[in-house]
Amino acid sequence: MMDPWQECMDYCLGVTKEAGKMIRDAVQREISIMQKSSPVDLVTETDQKVEELIISSIKKTYPSHSFIGEESVAAGASSVLTDNPTWIIDPIDGTTNFVHRFPFVSVSIGFTVNKQIEFGIVYSCIEDKMYTARKGKGAFCNGAPIKVSRQQDITKSLVLTEMGFKKDPEHFRIMMANMESLLTIPVHGIRAPGSAAVNMCLVACGAADAYYHMGIHCWDMAGGAAIITEAGGVIMDVTGGTFDLMSRRLIAASSRSIARCIAKKIQQLPCGRDDVEN
Amino acid sequence: MMDPWQECMDYCLGVTKEAGKMIRDAVQREISIMQKSSPVDLVTETDQKVEELIISSIKKTYPSHSFIGEESVAAGASSVLTDNPTWIIDPIDGTTNFVHRFPFVSVSIGFTVNKQIEFGIVYSCIEDKMYTARKGKGAFCNGAPIKVSRQQDITKSLVLTEMGFKKDPEHFRIMMANMESLLTIPVHGIRAPGSAAVNMCLVACGAADAYYHMGIHCWDMAGGAAIITEAGGVIMDVTGGTFDLMSRRLIAASSRSIARCIAKKIQQLPCGRDDVEN
Repeated sequence: MMDPWQECMDYCLGVTKEAGKMIRDAVQREISIMQKSSPVDLVTETDQKVEELIISSIKKTYPSHSFIGEESVAAGASSVLTDNPTWIIDPIDGTTNFVHRFPFVSVSIGFTVNKQIEFGIVYSCIEDKMYTARKGKGAFCNGAPIKVSRQQDITKSLVLTEMGFKKDPEHFRIMMANMESLLTIPVHGIRAPGSAAVNMCLVACGAADAYYHMGIHCWDMAGGAAIITEAGGVIMDVTGGTFDLMSRRLIAASSRSIARCIAKKIQQLPCGRDDVEN
Repeated sequence: MMDPWQECMDYCLGVTKEAGKMIRDAVQREISIMQKSSPVDLVTETDQKVEELIISSIKKTYPSHSFIGEESVAAGASSVLTDNPTWIIDPIDGTTNFVHRFPFVSVSIGFTVNKQIEFGIVYSCIEDKMYTARKGKGAFCNGAPIKVSRQQDITKSLVLTEMGFKKDPEHFRIMMANMESLLTIPVHGIRAPGSAAVNMCLVACGAADAYYHMGIHCWDMAGGAAIITEAGGVIMDVTGGTFDLMSRRLIAASSRSIARCIAKKIQQLPCGRDDVEN
């Protein structure tokens, strides 16, 4: 049987490469920075330009498809996931890294049909690493198959997360308490690379054993979710339940036992949903 | 006038490349892990092999020179810095990263004469980035000149540090409190890449604006200290005073104002000295 979505994935790969090149070029130049609302919430001209490039290019070829893009949503577009073929796009994942030229910056695209992720592409464009995964066909980095570490023991694990400033003191306290809770198990270490999509790819290729985060968005997770799953990893909600793309939170891990252990150790943050108006 | 130490630096470059290749090869293979004392304090056969390669090779060419190497000191050698030409060596900086194949792993070598650093070489061998600096001659990455960001404003800075489990609860509390203290200024973000020497190089090339750490060793800092300084950056003690290579602590930054601001914000940890028997 013909794979109906492989053509979309092939098309996506070309667009992602082009977007990544645009980002890499911008990193070479001086960048004029605009601030959305706080110093940690930076957005640049490039962010909007890259999303426009991606969406306009895909729209020309697939005019009936839907789109959920970080910048479009910021500009008022809906982020409700429907059964229609949908491209979920983060033009620059790791915007703060991008502004600082810290080397983990990626383009992340996930593609859903009937609300199920069919493929994911994450291009870590400064490192020039192209991560790809088609449902049921495995995960790859620059064409070579990748696998999670299969580590089962939390005390031997390297854990990824992110820490930022939160205006809500309770939110901030929980974020710090969660890191403390994991460090004192203890785990081997915590790393904070600064790009959700790259974090998921680092778990997918076995360079880390787990990643957890609350307060991110579907465009941060959609591409990486396909890659983690196809690399043999596990993705679940922070409650230990089923992963929900619109829930703004996830645990991604090399094994179910590590994911469950993290779910038990961390406190939940109230973070709303992507598909509910806040 | 002839530069008396350039020949040593050229020699060092060759040895470092060889050492980096050995590490890269080991990362490809399965690695058998030994544990020193705790899960975060990992050491591998490769660590010892690489240090032996480096020291034996340099000793053949410079038999009168002194050496301070992480593994040699662990095996009982002295780490008192003298006026003699001294090679200060970390065979694998980022051992936990190495074990997990997390991509920031480096060979770090600093060279002192009369206790002054004459040159530094840090080879981030998985990324294949060779950072070099000769006193008074600038800093380079793969031969291209590098410069710090020159950022002066702490609220626009990206800060690097490391967080690990500490058995001493007071030590752990201060480590967490320091991160909190910086995050709430707020800064743009904190990243924890997991290799002290790479952290210093990231500041040197402008990908981050500051790095602070207490509890590290002279072999973690010697190579990077030369690179930061020659890239136009600032290196100081966590008290705000003069940097001391044997003090086991540092602030490295893109500007004096950012370094001073961090010095004011963080609490000191008691961490002993490298040149005093503990």
